[in-house]
Amino acid sequence: MPDVTTTATRMELLDYQIARALIALEGPSELLTRMGDYSLGLVGTQGEETEPDVRAQVQGKRLRPQIAMLVAEAVGGSAEQAAPGAAAIELLHNFTLIHDDIQDRSPNRRHRPTVWRVWGDGQAINAGDALFAVSQLALLNSAQYVSAETLLLLAQRFNRCTIDIVRGQVQDINNEGRADVTPGDYLEMIGGKTAAILEFSAWAGATVGGADDATARRLGELGLAIGLGFQIRDDMLGIWSPASETGKDAADDIRRKKQSLPILILRANASAEDTERINHIYAQEEIDEQEVEEMLGLLAKYGVEAQTLEHVEVEHRRAMAILDDVFGDTDASAVYELRTLITQLVNRSF
Amino acid sequence: MPDVTTTATRMELLDYQIARALIALEGPSELLTRMGDYSLGLVGTQGEETEPDVRAQVQGKRLRPQIAMLVAEAVGGSAEQAAPGAAAIELLHNFTLIHDDIQDRSPNRRHRPTVWRVWGDGQAINAGDALFAVSQLALLNSAQYVSAETLLLLAQRFNRCTIDIVRGQVQDINNEGRADVTPGDYLEMIGGKTAAILEFSAWAGATVGGADDATARRLGELGLAIGLGFQIRDDMLGIWSPASETGKDAADDIRRKKQSLPILILRANASAEDTERINHIYAQEEIDEQEVEEMLGLLAKYGVEAQTLEHVEVEHRRAMAILDDVFGDTDASAVYELRTLITQLVNRSF
Repeated sequence: MPDVTTTATRMELLDYQIARALIALEGPSELLTRMGDYSLGLVGTQGEETEPDVRAQVQGKRLRPQIAMLVAEAVGGSAEQAAPGAAAIELLHNFTLIHDDIQDRSPNRRHRPTVWRVWGDGQAINAGDALFAVSQLALLNSAQYVSAETLLLLAQRFNRCTIDIVRGQVQDINNEGRADVTPGDYLEMIGGKTAAILEFSAWAGATVGGADDATARRLGELGLAIGLGFQIRDDMLGIWSPASETGKDAADDIRRKKQSLPILILRANASAEDTERINHIYAQEEIDEQEVEEMLGLLAKYGVEAQTLEHVEVEHRRAMAILDDVFGDTDASAVYELRTLITQLVNRSF
Repeated sequence: MPDVTTTATRMELLDYQIARALIALEGPSELLTRMGDYSLGLVGTQGEETEPDVRAQVQGKRLRPQIAMLVAEAVGGSAEQAAPGAAAIELLHNFTLIHDDIQDRSPNRRHRPTVWRVWGDGQAINAGDALFAVSQLALLNSAQYVSAETLLLLAQRFNRCTIDIVRGQVQDINNEGRADVTPGDYLEMIGGKTAAILEFSAWAGATVGGADDATARRLGELGLAIGLGFQIRDDMLGIWSPASETGKDAADDIRRKKQSLPILILRANASAEDTERINHIYAQEEIDEQEVEEMLGLLAKYGVEAQTLEHVEVEHRRAMAILDDVFGDTDASAVYELRTLITQLVNRSF
């Protein structure tokens, strides 16, 4: 029986590396430590420790660090080697969420008030900035597992990935309220905003785990496909998901006038007359329930759900093909877990 | 005649390393590149290149990178070795200014509209985040001049310094409107917000230039003293500076109800009766000119200008003592320039 790393062990390694990096926040400002710990689900707004079951809920899926660790194991390395990088990725992700929530005026994140809503915009900007610096320190803790050359490469790619994420966010804000955004523009935007960090996660996991450059690059493409598939699935759930499972109402993205992929596919397909209707509906301050139904009708008329699903399936097939290509029919448990995780992500209804 | 590095050469090396790191912003979003270039004074709001004379004005004093390069030269290294780190420091400084300006709602920075005022808060947050990532890439370009071990140490200290800066900013926002902030609290706050980056600048310059650990640490203390002296001098100019030289009205910090060091020293010295008056004046929405005069009168009554100046002079003496201690009566031109620069900073009236 081989020594199999379980998800619980991976999460312990991740928690340890996150806690180790977070020590850098300690100092004369208790508020800074608290905001950092809060955003990672470790404490509540008053600094009280969160209960383990609450913690699991408010920490989110921790998908990105899991991918990094699983890929490291799949190429013959260990979750332990990948843990500092995985912690850096999760910290980076949390930093971007804090700033995104300010930009989007999101009131809640993972069932709790957002950082800006508790401590104000100014302090939320600070909390994000500090977590970004902490994420760099976490990444540098890879030094004990990799060569100096690899560490430099990791740090360079980590910061280029951050720029890709920020660029996607710049484009996202820039696209708001514009009627001429194409599905292609959108895919480019989410390629940065959502998928770049998954590309880095898989690439870094492979690199730290000892894969050669070509394999690491190929596994980076796997991460990119996962990221794109994940985001497009998310866009579908924002329109066609049953309320009980997502915690938000069905068609919520229509009410919020989001320019998600289904809406852009609809716009790209709609007749001149229907386009006028869509523009009219999206130009209003508030969209009423009858108009929500009308939008759902238009999405059905042009077969948008099937077209969007096709995008998800393309990415899923791409991801699976890379796994087959790189690992063949290896029965390593990490490869099996990667296949399962990817399929779950693509088929998820929450 | 030794080969002397001039300020112009240093600025060329700095410009080169900044431009080299900024390449990472290039990509499908022209806006991201433009915001980055704008904040560094390279272009105007429409992306038009700034004229050389305008550029010098809008780029500020570039004090921090100069200190890093001068210290590197003083310990026997070169400005060239220190240039990637100096670029990182200047980029880090610019990132913090972009975010500070959002937090403080500052309309102008270096004679131009602030990033948030041109492109909105959301994009300004993005511009700062991206520049922070660019600053890390600039620092990593030190790899060609230092050992892998030193590079790791530089990167760790750079991010710890950033956390110190952010912590100072957290404390600064947290202190707003509070009547119980002490001069000690304030000195702790500016130790992070303003002085930590100068400490890093001098320490990093020394380290890259080849100084031993103890000397580098001592020169870090020099940077800290410069940073504290610089900020306290700035606080004095906010109250007692003639309008023509600072570009802002005398006593402007009183009108803006800033809790700068002179005000905190006044509060620490004032009688119960005077304290009541100060609290009353600072509790108002707007302070009228008669009340500004009254505050100036109270500052004079308690001899606050002399007490504040004493703080500046303590830091100046500390800085000069460290220079004497480390360099003795070396007549290296960089040491001479450091002495001159420090004395100018402390005596400046603008």
